[in-house]
Amino acid sequence: MTVTDIPLQMTASVLTGAKALKVEQVPVPAYASDEVLIKISAVGVCGSDTHYYRHGEAGGFVVKEPMILGHECSGVIVAVGSDVPESRIGERVAIEPQRNCRRCRECMAGRYNLCPYMEFYATPPIDGSFAEYAVIRTEFAHKVPDSMSDEAAALLEPLSVAITTMRKAGIVPGSSILIAGAGPIGIICAQTAKAFGAAEIIVTDLVPERRERALRYGATRVIDPVETDVATAGLDVNAFVDASGAARAVYSGIQAVRPAGTAVLVGLGSSEMVLPVEHIQNREVSVTGIFRYTDTWPAAIHLVSTGQIELDSLVTGKFDLDHAGEALESDLNPESLKSIVYPRAGGK
Amino acid sequence: MTVTDIPLQMTASVLTGAKALKVEQVPVPAYASDEVLIKISAVGVCGSDTHYYRHGEAGGFVVKEPMILGHECSGVIVAVGSDVPESRIGERVAIEPQRNCRRCRECMAGRYNLCPYMEFYATPPIDGSFAEYAVIRTEFAHKVPDSMSDEAAALLEPLSVAITTMRKAGIVPGSSILIAGAGPIGIICAQTAKAFGAAEIIVTDLVPERRERALRYGATRVIDPVETDVATAGLDVNAFVDASGAARAVYSGIQAVRPAGTAVLVGLGSSEMVLPVEHIQNREVSVTGIFRYTDTWPAAIHLVSTGQIELDSLVTGKFDLDHAGEALESDLNPESLKSIVYPRAGGK
Amino acid sequence: MTVTDIPLQMTASVLTGAKALKVEQVPVPAYASDEVLIKISAVGVCGSDTHYYRHGEAGGFVVKEPMILGHECSGVIVAVGSDVPESRIGERVAIEPQRNCRRCRECMAGRYNLCPYMEFYATPPIDGSFAEYAVIRTEFAHKVPDSMSDEAAALLEPLSVAITTMRKAGIVPGSSILIAGAGPIGIICAQTAKAFGAAEIIVTDLVPERRERALRYGATRVIDPVETDVATAGLDVNAFVDASGAARAVYSGIQAVRPAGTAVLVGLGSSEMVLPVEHIQNREVSVTGIFRYTDTWPAAIHLVSTGQIELDSLVTGKFDLDHAGEALESDLNPESLKSIVYPRAGGK
Amino acid sequence: MTVTDIPLQMTASVLTGAKALKVEQVPVPAYASDEVLIKISAVGVCGSDTHYYRHGEAGGFVVKEPMILGHECSGVIVAVGSDVPESRIGERVAIEPQRNCRRCRECMAGRYNLCPYMEFYATPPIDGSFAEYAVIRTEFAHKVPDSMSDEAAALLEPLSVAITTMRKAGIVPGSSILIAGAGPIGIICAQTAKAFGAAEIIVTDLVPERRERALRYGATRVIDPVETDVATAGLDVNAFVDASGAARAVYSGIQAVRPAGTAVLVGLGSSEMVLPVEHIQNREVSVTGIFRYTDTWPAAIHLVSTGQIELDSLVTGKFDLDHAGEALESDLNPESLKSIVYPRAGGK
Repeated sequence: MTVTDIPLQMTASVLTGAKALKVEQVPVPAYASDEVLIKISAVGVCGSDTHYYRHGEAGGFVVKEPMILGHECSGVIVAVGSDVPESRIGERVAIEPQRNCRRCRECMAGRYNLCPYMEFYATPPIDGSFAEYAVIRTEFAHKVPDSMSDEAAALLEPLSVAITTMRKAGIVPGSSILIAGAGPIGIICAQTAKAFGAAEIIVTDLVPERRERALRYGATRVIDPVETDVATAGLDVNAFVDASGAARAVYSGIQAVRPAGTAVLVGLGSSEMVLPVEHIQNREVSVTGIFRYTDTWPAAIHLVSTGQIELDSLVTGKFDLDHAGEALESDLNPESLKSIVYPRAGGK
Repeated sequence: MTVTDIPLQMTASVLTGAKALKVEQVPVPAYASDEVLIKISAVGVCGSDTHYYRHGEAGGFVVKEPMILGHECSGVIVAVGSDVPESRIGERVAIEPQRNCRRCRECMAGRYNLCPYMEFYATPPIDGSFAEYAVIRTEFAHKVPDSMSDEAAALLEPLSVAITTMRKAGIVPGSSILIAGAGPIGIICAQTAKAFGAAEIIVTDLVPERRERALRYGATRVIDPVETDVATAGLDVNAFVDASGAARAVYSGIQAVRPAGTAVLVGLGSSEMVLPVEHIQNREVSVTGIFRYTDTWPAAIHLVSTGQIELDSLVTGKFDLDHAGEALESDLNPESLKSIVYPRAGGK
Repeated sequence: MTVTDIPLQMTASVLTGAKALKVEQVPVPAYASDEVLIKISAVGVCGSDTHYYRHGEAGGFVVKEPMILGHECSGVIVAVGSDVPESRIGERVAIEPQRNCRRCRECMAGRYNLCPYMEFYATPPIDGSFAEYAVIRTEFAHKVPDSMSDEAAALLEPLSVAITTMRKAGIVPGSSILIAGAGPIGIICAQTAKAFGAAEIIVTDLVPERRERALRYGATRVIDPVETDVATAGLDVNAFVDASGAARAVYSGIQAVRPAGTAVLVGLGSSEMVLPVEHIQNREVSVTGIFRYTDTWPAAIHLVSTGQIELDSLVTGKFDLDHAGEALESDLNPESLKSIVYPRAGGK
Repeated sequence: MTVTDIPLQMTASVLTGAKALKVEQVPVPAYASDEVLIKISAVGVCGSDTHYYRHGEAGGFVVKEPMILGHECSGVIVAVGSDVPESRIGERVAIEPQRNCRRCRECMAGRYNLCPYMEFYATPPIDGSFAEYAVIRTEFAHKVPDSMSDEAAALLEPLSVAITTMRKAGIVPGSSILIAGAGPIGIICAQTAKAFGAAEIIVTDLVPERRERALRYGATRVIDPVETDVATAGLDVNAFVDASGAARAVYSGIQAVRPAGTAVLVGLGSSEMVLPVEHIQNREVSVTGIFRYTDTWPAAIHLVSTGQIELDSLVTGKFDLDHAGEALESDLNPESLKSIVYPRAGGK
């Protein structure tokens, strides 16, 4: 495909209001000199996509104008800006779906994830990738090996969340970790904890099937939090990771952390929660959250391409653009883990 | 004084129940081979002492048997264990009032403050220093220069809290810090923040006189939290330190922290609090507490003896053992900052 | 075996001078209240043992009196001090062969490996474990699973060196590392780098067979340093680890480190070396060494018992006490990797 | 002054070969949309300027074409690029004399000082500020208070070197530090160590007058290295900073570092040096260098404007552009510390 082959219009699934998705023709986005145009292969559905779809907002960000959802994505570079080597055309890539300002205090300090001027896919008002094409800076289009599927390449995004979480949680060979929630992020966190060397990986979830699944993905032990109070079960973990967003899980999980340990709140729940402050003080537990990622795709590609982390089997549903709404609602099915949308004509 | 001069009995102020203090004769404590016996010169009254006095518990620790309060103290070494050089006898020292086990996981990792077997002065069931004599390991009896007053030497303990806080808060030259509460810990934290190089030191307090005082002790700006909501005032600080224990101050203070900043909860308040989790997540703020200290006395002695931190003027009340109850209630007087108890016969 | 069954004398291999080893009867060492007596199962031969054997000194420590060599060892607890639960008797354990003072500045800071009062096996004047019995503090006798061989349990000691090295080198999933030297430490470092998640593990060695071996133990690439100058080969690694002790390897290896990377000098070579200071400055490379370990056995046991690291196949020679001298000279055989001495009567 | 008032040509001192400086008319540099044009007020002479002047190279960088020296500088913004607020015109600023690429691995990690595409003032082939005007990105033109002199504003650059050094050296309240060399960098490091809270600041220098000077600028002790071997004097410092470039000082200084301490090599000397590797290993000393700075000007402005660091008195010589060569040779006078060049017509 040469530049002249790139169409002016493309098909996209546009969110126009709560639960209102419309497949329509929109302009193919323009790319700057340091950007590449990517034909999208596969897009994972994230909880935040579903939240925007249902509520028109997520994590404090509000959809005010029509917006294209989707930010876990892979594709093929079909055109490059003038500063990018033409040899990149044809590369299969995973997209790190952010464009930071490069010059603010956070960017200059290496924390580009916290750039206040960040333009992030599918975070209002920036469009995402439930569309045939998307644009990203060349350094955020990460080449993936031929052996990696389109779906796995798309899921490097939630894996990046998990890698950031493990880094914040300080997981090293021999660590112990408690993970609340065996949804997609919890499951990927369990795998990633194992890849980071965790010796003890305890996962809690209310649903027996989800606990079973956790055991297949790295958990060394699962707990039904209704039966066992993790706060008093003597877990004594180095780190607690919340991937549930449930206030009760967060409260008790923090109490399971050993002195000088860490709690990382990844799941999106209420904007405020009651936390066990005395425990945090008496044990000097550090409680924090993560907000996206910096410099995770290379590690993610390594972990997946060497088989240390397996993403393909997480896919439980496949949809074309016309059925994106169904994909966004697939979390209602308790057996669903990760849905993939294929924006190309005819889907997968 | 030779060993034979040490009496068998001493006068001590013993807490026998809520608001029940009794001055009585108790045995002079025995010292082990690696310990020293100290004749106590001065003891500062801490909020935890007052809390035990009023409520019979503090921070989750409950007084079940008669106990001697007081853990901010200085004195003179009058006898030494067999493994301690006799030349230490006569040294004026500040006491680091803890005895860790030296062999648990925390001790071996250098976090002896978090030793689960810690014996800490005036934390049930360990006696403190509202008494003529006290015992401590030789390495925790820190020699102070002649130029340092007994009171300042005693107040190296709350200064150690402040030093630990600044370390946790990551204060370095140029940092900005918000401190909630201009009580003793808040005031010492303001001074310590300055000594650590903080460029902006903002202190909040409800009481105008206390805000005024903060300005004399290092604050570069004071805020009346009733008039100004620190959460929305654009403070953008590197670190927030709570020295108030007030849930509302903690909530809004965390919201004033910049991306990747830190909140350190020092004040003792409720055992659980509502915290702004979404803010913590979106900004990757780290929220933690401090529990005592490790390796702070040498730095504290340096800061005080070079005049970078001034402790003597914090003393607003002086009491002998017979009036220890009054000393413990002096926080009811809003002009009071720090009371000192002198356990020797006749007081100061 | 009950305490009364413990003999007063034991057989040991005693180093009495350069290349002078003598198998003789010596007293079974006494154990203190917090110690355990261990019947030694297997002892690995370390380069430092060989160095003491040949030269009567190593790394600045000089043998002045008869001393028992050997510090990589495993065994079975046969008696315990009064403060140790009797239930430990019969446990198969790996020995962390050090006794720190617990109270000096380094111990209190959690760096017990740097304790200036350290008593370390087979470092003059402390006896090691080329003997039927040895004594260690209970916390340094680490229980190993039944599935782990005596040899692997002994080799947790060099694995601890490798774990410390990876920690210092900052190896995390996705890192790149250059290792100079494919001897025992280099090979274990390669495996450990892989377990820590390194994506690129480059090993250099002069000997083709040793390079081949490195590829079987985790290296992703090997280099003959005679053919390829690592300094100019564009390696750009996060970390360089020297396991050769060769000045030339150290010099060029440091030059292969990327900006802000790390060089860890593990191999013992000359007490001083010419280093590329301009490179260190212009790239802000950090050059350091390691000296033993803190808190590594639990991680080591995890890595070996889960098969992430394989130690048994490193053993290339087995010797009884009578042939300890031969074991100490086995490095002369280029195919030798790790020799094991069995102090029990009759050897293995 | 409006944009139309900016001349097309300016006077500059151009280095055309070793010891060959020529004052000539050159074009005023063009400024991009995110840059500002600065009328230079004062320029400090750095050792690297002198090295380029004498040898045509420094630290591995070689002068191949005529180049303007000078990178320690202050001035007034006289014009701004289209993306910079016009309100900046008229601001007195200190210049952070670098232009990083903003997008390479190092820039994205927050280490913009290590950007391989860095354009740095007076590092070939980039011009410096021995000229009437210079251009810098708006974020690197740091506003200084009216109370700060032009000279002090220029000397924020070497102060930034010292701040970076103290950060790398880990200096915190109570630390001890050994500094080799009482030249400009050594003297500023001594002051900065004090501002960072160092309790013990030991400075070595061969020249008695320079040692005396060090005592006036923060040193708590000075040592004549001919009389006292710092390696064996029991110094036991947390950090050693070399500001001499002398191989012997580096060797012995590293030996004075306590276990787990740090050595930071700042002085430019030979590209390779013999270092005490056994000491580095046995004590796990970390040896590194610094290469420029990131995010230091705000802290520097704070330290100088609050009087914690005093720079004006370091100026021992003032020169106009016609005498820049003399300024560059002023290090030959042992009483000289810092020379300032004033590029404006007529000098100061």
